[in-house]
Amino acid sequence: MNRITGLFNIKYPIIQAGMIWCSGWKLASAVSNAGCLGLIGSGSMYPEILREHIIKCKKATDKPFGINVPLLYPQIDDHIKIILDEKVKIVFTSAGNPKRFTSLLKDNGVTVVHVVANSKFALKCEEAGVDAVVAEGFEAGGHNGIEETTTFCLIPRVRESISLPLIAAGGIASGRGVLAAFALGAEGVQIGSRFAASVESSAHENFKKAMISSSEGDTKLVLKKIIPVRILKNKFYQQVQEAEDRGASADELRELLGRARAKLGMFGGDLDTGELEIGQIAGFIKEIKPAAQIIEEIVNEFEQVRKQLSNFSFK
Amino acid sequence: MNRITGLFNIKYPIIQAGMIWCSGWKLASAVSNAGCLGLIGSGSMYPEILREHIIKCKKATDKPFGINVPLLYPQIDDHIKIILDEKVKIVFTSAGNPKRFTSLLKDNGVTVVHVVANSKFALKCEEAGVDAVVAEGFEAGGHNGIEETTTFCLIPRVRESISLPLIAAGGIASGRGVLAAFALGAEGVQIGSRFAASVESSAHENFKKAMISSSEGDTKLVLKKIIPVRILKNKFYQQVQEAEDRGASADELRELLGRARAKLGMFGGDLDTGELEIGQIAGFIKEIKPAAQIIEEIVNEFEQVRKQLSNFSFK
Repeated sequence: MNRITGLFNIKYPIIQAGMIWCSGWKLASAVSNAGCLGLIGSGSMYPEILREHIIKCKKATDKPFGINVPLLYPQIDDHIKIILDEKVKIVFTSAGNPKRFTSLLKDNGVTVVHVVANSKFALKCEEAGVDAVVAEGFEAGGHNGIEETTTFCLIPRVRESISLPLIAAGGIASGRGVLAAFALGAEGVQIGSRFAASVESSAHENFKKAMISSSEGDTKLVLKKIIPVRILKNKFYQQVQEAEDRGASADELRELLGRARAKLGMFGGDLDTGELEIGQIAGFIKEIKPAAQIIEEIVNEFEQVRKQLSNFSFK
Repeated sequence: MNRITGLFNIKYPIIQAGMIWCSGWKLASAVSNAGCLGLIGSGSMYPEILREHIIKCKKATDKPFGINVPLLYPQIDDHIKIILDEKVKIVFTSAGNPKRFTSLLKDNGVTVVHVVANSKFALKCEEAGVDAVVAEGFEAGGHNGIEETTTFCLIPRVRESISLPLIAAGGIASGRGVLAAFALGAEGVQIGSRFAASVESSAHENFKKAMISSSEGDTKLVLKKIIPVRILKNKFYQQVQEAEDRGASADELRELLGRARAKLGMFGGDLDTGELEIGQIAGFIKEIKPAAQIIEEIVNEFEQVRKQLSNFSFK
């Protein structure tokens, strides 16, 4: 169909984001079985847990799947070793320099994609020899760029900067969103929040319910003095906002954040004190559904809106 | 063609935003003469100056044009009186409650459009009886909503909330952007920054040059403790950022902002101490062009990308 479906050998150019605490083997294999690319999110897994998820994912699907690897992960070398050991063929790297592992991975026959938030880093990806780029806008959940460039502004800019296959991320949860991303110049999309609220997501049920009952304006990009992160508003968010309003330093904010707060909220289901990473589009999601149904609805809406627009001429 | 071209009796469903210090009669009439809807930005005009611009605009075009009226303007009643006196037929209101003037304007045969940043206010527009809604995302220049919802997330949400004709704004400066807005559910677009950098814009040449030499990440939404506003980064921005980082109060920020700082920068050309209101997409704009050429390029790109996508099926 296009360069993205060709690169990964998938039916639809849709990638499920490898999110911490949401994207285990169950979600990744369900998405891959439905004709898209599922990713295991290794950022919340100890190395041996990652190995377990890879082995289970291989059993659950004979379709291509991949791993998302945040390069700031402390045991990153162990993760890379396991990925090579287990002969995983697709890796999405993020939160770091694409030069770090691209050669090693490619020498071992791995297809490498890197996630960026501006065109400067997209160019670095091209230099590093990655196979495709994910450009992620301000509206995306979790860790985010410091420049706050939105998907609408980012995608055309990255499109004109690089010739690599381009995947759009941030704010996409529907067929309309996929079509808009394609109009802006993307050849594929990466969808996070919509799959975080799927049946197969390993997010805690409390967190899933909080996602689908959230509305517009219920997420915020905070902790910009450390690493910007988009979270659902809750008691923890209120504490952060109050601290930031009075000018709290990076150190104070680090102390307030503490350790394992995302696990507490997203996996443990503590909606008050946990850190609930999710995208702005969560306010648009109203139901927890199986991944295959989510994909079917996205594909159908894409086709429907595309046909409407194909009859709409300015001339 | 659709409800927006029908409502305003224009050829293309493209509206030029009525921006302070940029959108006088020259820009509005040039845009209207090119088949789109030009708006005079009354927010930076004394009442008699507004009257002068309306009279000149009528002489410069026999096509429909309108006025943007920020409802927080101190002499708002004088503005409304002049608009009715001069029999202007289209008014875009913003920054306030749509109930305030909609009945009066509509009783006088004026088509009323209101600008919102979330679907809650879009519903209020419907209740107030306005004729169409502009939904403006986080990436837009100038004053902005507090919820920071981006164009990508905002438009589908407003689309499902109201049945009124919907105009998308924020981040749109190209045919790709217009097509993406339509894919998300808009029936028209409002374009600001691209026209701020036009030949006919009344922005100071220094400001226009600063726009076209700006890049990604060169604007920021600041002054959130007063009214959020997106500005180009300069020395004044640095002062604001430093003040906000140390937790400056709303009063301190108001004092730092002072009075007439937007005029100083946007109209006076003082790039260091002026407040330079502009959208995130400015970093994408590389040339000052006549309004008619900007429109021609947008229309051509829209058609080109639409045709490409109409041949691209998921099934």
